[in-house]
Amino acid sequence: MKARIYIKLKPEVLDPQGKAVSGGLKTLGFDGVRDVRVGKYIVLDMDDKIAVAVAEKQVKDMCEVLLVNTVIEEYEFKIDT
Amino acid sequence: MKARIYIKLKPEVLDPQGKAVSGGLKTLGFDGVRDVRVGKYIVLDMDDKIAVAVAEKQVKDMCEVLLVNTVIEEYEFKIDT
Repeated sequence: MKARIYIKLKPEVLDPQGKAVSGGLKTLGFDGVRDVRVGKYIVLDMDDKIAVAVAEKQVKDMCEVLLVNTVIEEYEFKIDT
Repeated sequence: MKARIYIKLKPEVLDPQGKAVSGGLKTLGFDGVRDVRVGKYIVLDMDDKIAVAVAEKQVKDMCEVLLVNTVIEEYEFKIDT
């Protein structure tokens, strides 16, 4: 079972890495890009014996405790069986 | 229009950051995690006047030229109008 976690900075938090990427894209001639936000994408390979509802609870706990800085970041996740 | 790009290391490439996260999760008691891969999640806010087919071509070019190291990383993307 795979859990895919998408973490990004909250909209009100400044993203210097995104700004740098945005500048780089403009320099390369990609003018259609208005804004860039860079976040993290974490794929967890989990034991298949865990029930999906339990896995959802566990992934939420993992995000809150270790993976996400909830002060400045927000996250969503999907579980594929 | 938003383009969401998911970048991860190719399966055969060692992921020390993923190994560290995996160790951290095990220390915290999350035993059901077999493997962790940490990648990047990039959200591009693009000009709405660009046609979706053109945007797809542009995002592919951005990935190949700047955003993704195609030697060690693989990517996929989705465009939401």
